[in-house]
Amino acid sequence: MTGLVLASGGSDTLARHLADVLGLPLGAVESRHFPDGETYLRLDADCRGRHVVIACALDHPDPKLLPLVFRAEAARAEGASRVGLVAPYLAYMRQDQQFRPGEAVTSRTFAALLSRHIDWLVTVDPHLHRVHALGEVYAVPSRVVAAAPALAAWIAAHVTRPLVVGPDEESGQWVRDVATRAGAPFVVMRKVRRGDRTVEITAPDVSAWRDHTPVVVDDVVSSGQTMIATVGRLVEAGLPAPVCLAVHALFARETDEALRAAGASGIVTTNTINHPAGTIDIVPLLVPAIADLAGALTP
Amino acid sequence: MTGLVLASGGSDTLARHLADVLGLPLGAVESRHFPDGETYLRLDADCRGRHVVIACALDHPDPKLLPLVFRAEAARAEGASRVGLVAPYLAYMRQDQQFRPGEAVTSRTFAALLSRHIDWLVTVDPHLHRVHALGEVYAVPSRVVAAAPALAAWIAAHVTRPLVVGPDEESGQWVRDVATRAGAPFVVMRKVRRGDRTVEITAPDVSAWRDHTPVVVDDVVSSGQTMIATVGRLVEAGLPAPVCLAVHALFARETDEALRAAGASGIVTTNTINHPAGTIDIVPLLVPAIADLAGALTP
Repeated sequence: MTGLVLASGGSDTLARHLADVLGLPLGAVESRHFPDGETYLRLDADCRGRHVVIACALDHPDPKLLPLVFRAEAARAEGASRVGLVAPYLAYMRQDQQFRPGEAVTSRTFAALLSRHIDWLVTVDPHLHRVHALGEVYAVPSRVVAAAPALAAWIAAHVTRPLVVGPDEESGQWVRDVATRAGAPFVVMRKVRRGDRTVEITAPDVSAWRDHTPVVVDDVVSSGQTMIATVGRLVEAGLPAPVCLAVHALFARETDEALRAAGASGIVTTNTINHPAGTIDIVPLLVPAIADLAGALTP
Repeated sequence: MTGLVLASGGSDTLARHLADVLGLPLGAVESRHFPDGETYLRLDADCRGRHVVIACALDHPDPKLLPLVFRAEAARAEGASRVGLVAPYLAYMRQDQQFRPGEAVTSRTFAALLSRHIDWLVTVDPHLHRVHALGEVYAVPSRVVAAAPALAAWIAAHVTRPLVVGPDEESGQWVRDVATRAGAPFVVMRKVRRGDRTVEITAPDVSAWRDHTPVVVDDVVSSGQTMIATVGRLVEAGLPAPVCLAVHALFARETDEALRAAGASGIVTTNTINHPAGTIDIVPLLVPAIADLAGALTP
């Protein structure tokens, strides 16, 4: 079937790259706002009979949802045979049940809403906690792409004698996977949360690893408190300046600066979110997942 | 049935006022954002068996939609018997068909989406063009409240010897209604659009009205070009400084200043949108429409 890629929610770089990697045309989209803030949208691309792939990183999702839904529905109205969504960062995965009475279970509401407008979904390492598979909340077929191979390849290519470090037990299994793929040893720290923003990290004895470069890996970095505390423990133990690695870059410049101040040599992430730190390219990893759901697509 | 009012999309002042006018409690809502921009929401109000009325002005609608949907679904999950929406300004009424190929028909998509989460809708003077009734796009019962009585009452109370002025033929019938209710004469100008932001207004001979105060009325003021041009024609014709009146205040401070620079004595609007100009209270006008759809509600 013929395919077409569309960008949404400011993911223009991602969409262009995805179109290149898939060998598909990138559809032009004309968009502006009316004075009341409404979105005007026009697809300047021939969608007839095509399988349309929308690329949209869903960090800061609230203002992005309607423009995404409008693209999907406009593509269908223009004759698209199917509409899939590639959201390398997927929002609303955390609130999948009520912890206090009255809480909105946003995970299920968001997934149900989005499922009405797309035929399939591909994402990268969603923040799954109690929900163990996307299919528990999404009504459409989905594929989760693991970023671990990309992180492992980056470590193997850029770090001499790496020691992979997991900041807490929650990351344990994931860290083991990255370390094994990179052919590196690993340790896992213990995290104790003291309030919303304060984190205490207990390190095992890492003094035997003073000739290794620690690589702290986590799935998401936002405030960076966990990673900053982990870097602090490693520096205290006399290890070389740690390298920080993450899948999803949700942090501001201050976090980058705080990590360096704590002794890290820097932070590198994948490009699931458009961010200056996102130099590890996960887009090629998306191709098999898209092919699995969309079949073979031709220009 | 017992009722409860909830605020959404920053419409806290509107919601409190509506709760007062309806004699219903205002439910507390706890809301914040996660680092990835997701909305956290918790209703701190007993919704069981209650008819929940959500107050949300839908100007700048894109970021407001999900928090609104989350409130509606959370209220239902907490046992609300019905969930209605009072949106004094209703978005996405203009793009109700394609004017160019590929255009997203946002009006129908937005209405269909919203209709899945609410039981009824009350709004004030929506910008209806080709759609003649909300029922053509909304799948749920709706009522349109006319602001004309409130504008007419304001004119009667504040302007001596008013001449109601409609800026274009499109506003003709509406202007006649306001004028009749205010017991005032009226004239209608002719508008010629020259591009997106330039407007030329042709005035009939208004020199006979030099002892009247012109009151220029329109439904929406955003860039203000139409109203500024109208004020200019009236001042040129030697009439006293015009008063400007509108239902929906979508304009920025610069428009207010430009209107005064053109010779207007000022601009006054209703409070459908939270705006400094919104001193004409339409909330009491909403009560019969809400009662019509929700029945009698008690605290």
